[in-house]
Amino acid sequence: MARGLIEGNAIIGQSGGPTAVINQSLVGIIEGLRGYKPIKKIFGMRHGVDGLIKHMPLVDLGALGTEQLEKIAKTPSACLGSSRNKPTEADAPKIFEACRANDIRYFFYIGGNDSSDTCRIVYEMGVKAGYELRCFHVPKTVDNDLMGSDHTPGYGSAARYVAMAFMADDRDNASLPGIKINVVMGRNAGFLTAASALARHYEGDGPHLIYLPEVPFDTDRFVEDVKGMVTKYNRCQIAVSEGIKDKDGQDIGAKLIAGDKDAHGNAQLSGSGALGDMLSNLLKEKFKSPSGKPPRVRADTLGYLQRCWPEPSPVDAAEARGAGVKAATEAMNGLTDGSIAIVRLSNHPYRVDKRVLKLSDVAAKTRTMPPEFISGHHDVSRAFIDYAKPLVGDMMHFAPRL
Amino acid sequence: MARGLIEGNAIIGQSGGPTAVINQSLVGIIEGLRGYKPIKKIFGMRHGVDGLIKHMPLVDLGALGTEQLEKIAKTPSACLGSSRNKPTEADAPKIFEACRANDIRYFFYIGGNDSSDTCRIVYEMGVKAGYELRCFHVPKTVDNDLMGSDHTPGYGSAARYVAMAFMADDRDNASLPGIKINVVMGRNAGFLTAASALARHYEGDGPHLIYLPEVPFDTDRFVEDVKGMVTKYNRCQIAVSEGIKDKDGQDIGAKLIAGDKDAHGNAQLSGSGALGDMLSNLLKEKFKSPSGKPPRVRADTLGYLQRCWPEPSPVDAAEARGAGVKAATEAMNGLTDGSIAIVRLSNHPYRVDKRVLKLSDVAAKTRTMPPEFISGHHDVSRAFIDYAKPLVGDMMHFAPRL
Repeated sequence: MARGLIEGNAIIGQSGGPTAVINQSLVGIIEGLRGYKPIKKIFGMRHGVDGLIKHMPLVDLGALGTEQLEKIAKTPSACLGSSRNKPTEADAPKIFEACRANDIRYFFYIGGNDSSDTCRIVYEMGVKAGYELRCFHVPKTVDNDLMGSDHTPGYGSAARYVAMAFMADDRDNASLPGIKINVVMGRNAGFLTAASALARHYEGDGPHLIYLPEVPFDTDRFVEDVKGMVTKYNRCQIAVSEGIKDKDGQDIGAKLIAGDKDAHGNAQLSGSGALGDMLSNLLKEKFKSPSGKPPRVRADTLGYLQRCWPEPSPVDAAEARGAGVKAATEAMNGLTDGSIAIVRLSNHPYRVDKRVLKLSDVAAKTRTMPPEFISGHHDVSRAFIDYAKPLVGDMMHFAPRL
Repeated sequence: MARGLIEGNAIIGQSGGPTAVINQSLVGIIEGLRGYKPIKKIFGMRHGVDGLIKHMPLVDLGALGTEQLEKIAKTPSACLGSSRNKPTEADAPKIFEACRANDIRYFFYIGGNDSSDTCRIVYEMGVKAGYELRCFHVPKTVDNDLMGSDHTPGYGSAARYVAMAFMADDRDNASLPGIKINVVMGRNAGFLTAASALARHYEGDGPHLIYLPEVPFDTDRFVEDVKGMVTKYNRCQIAVSEGIKDKDGQDIGAKLIAGDKDAHGNAQLSGSGALGDMLSNLLKEKFKSPSGKPPRVRADTLGYLQRCWPEPSPVDAAEARGAGVKAATEAMNGLTDGSIAIVRLSNHPYRVDKRVLKLSDVAAKTRTMPPEFISGHHDVSRAFIDYAKPLVGDMMHFAPRL
């Protein structure tokens, strides 16, 4: 719905697991709002809506100069602080009251699908109270799992890091041949693990096996797969999603980690090497030589660097910025609420546009890898490569192996 | 000892854990040898002396063009393949015979202290047999643990990756505050773990605690250290060497890993998350809330990317190249054997020179962090920062936290 602009302040928050480009969106929103008369002040909330609930002091973002903003844009991880807490029923009125107390009329929230839901709840409270509060969700997630988007800001940079990591690690593995497992982030969606396939350039390059959360993981079949690749290449580099599930849909990694659960009831998957180590020990046992000597098996868990490595995909950085600008522009054009989505217009040349979705169309929903992006039970398809390649930007290629 | 040049072929090998710049040294040797009349062919051995022992076909490195060589130089991990095997007494004659059979008169081996020892053995066999074979060791190790060198090619790039990783991960941790452990490579020498300190730029930046293999690790004291930092900063980022040892000098990590031992009898330390997970579980248990809820503790093990990330320190890349050139030049100047070492002439401005050490002065010896580089039981000194800073090259800085 579009209406005329009301005078007041704007506020911006960041939520969920940060990305390498989440501050690009922050700066994009500030840029997009600047110069509009109805906008009096531009505030930042600390640690998302947690900061509003707990009355943490607001940050005066409008006071920042261009040079400072550019430096912030290039800095990974939420500069305002983030939050993993999903607001409860009791929290929602507190958030809304904090907005009203600070004369906030424009509310921007950068985050995943839960952030879209937060926007929706806050927006609806405003409507009910007769207090005009325009609410926009700016997408970010390395998981690339938002509904209605071709892809999500944050994904391209994480995918670039994963592809670079597999490329480099594959050469390490080729120089000292063995079995190498790399565990990649992604609770339910395999997009980030799938990006490992972008590391392949020459025949025989890894990853030789890719296991996604979308395909049930079978331990015996895994051992056979590895055996086949070792026979063929005398080594094997393996990409495993931290979110792989057994035939009953149970997380395999979560069972191994003595961890906490977040506000959404999700068990810890990242920040532990347990899944990689379990698979590594399994292969050491299965491939023991007759004398009992285990083969060279190593497991790395790529960890939090996937989402914060400070050399983002240039494409992703620009799109994250643009998504922030778009949200601000739509608000200034009179729209009352919505979630920004990237749509792909063409792939050759790569061209995108942004559109506005209904908050409820994104909220609390999850997209996973479509079947056409998956090939067999341990690989991605050509269609996925075509999809993902433009998102990571130009990448270096190594020399052919000698 | 210096003598006139004998006509024949040269051979180059790469050994041990690869680095991001080990191929710079390879290309440096080729460059340094080119145009010298006595050099007929320049060969590469596959997988170090293993390739000679097993009669693997040699690689004709002399046939490579400039563009190919530059691409190889920029490619991480041993392009010729590497080896973890230390030649046995029975192997030495096979290596020597393979050299004689291929009319090799110039033998270059890029590797750590064991590679220097291999050079020494091969050289001495030549002397004994009256077959002139000049043998040079070109240093490489991310551990920076070679005797007689100010620092070792490979270290600067790994140190750069570690510093960048801690910088980025610290922002991730600041945006979602908690306890974060990052485990860094280094069996006996703490140089690489110490490089995490280069990540600090603003007051309050991590790493807040650094644990080196040189300082006995005490679990109770560790818990107290973390408690202190959490009180001060409401979060704590921790650098832990994979090689930390208890008061009796026993590896803490090795006991946790169901691993193989290499040819040197070293137990597996890398390629497992076990040490990080053990420390993480310890802190979760010790810091449980009265209701039994564990705090947010995460552990990443930085893994093999430390030694192969394809964006090296420019300083390190140039020095690795230069070390290769120096070895070739010394051989062409008539020297019969030696190991190349980097010496620092001055720190402001940073200037180095290279000199030639006796092979036996480097062979099978290990350098660790000198006491003046260590501060207390969980930090490095200002002297270490001054030492390490020029080696990693210019680094980006993030925006101040908001």
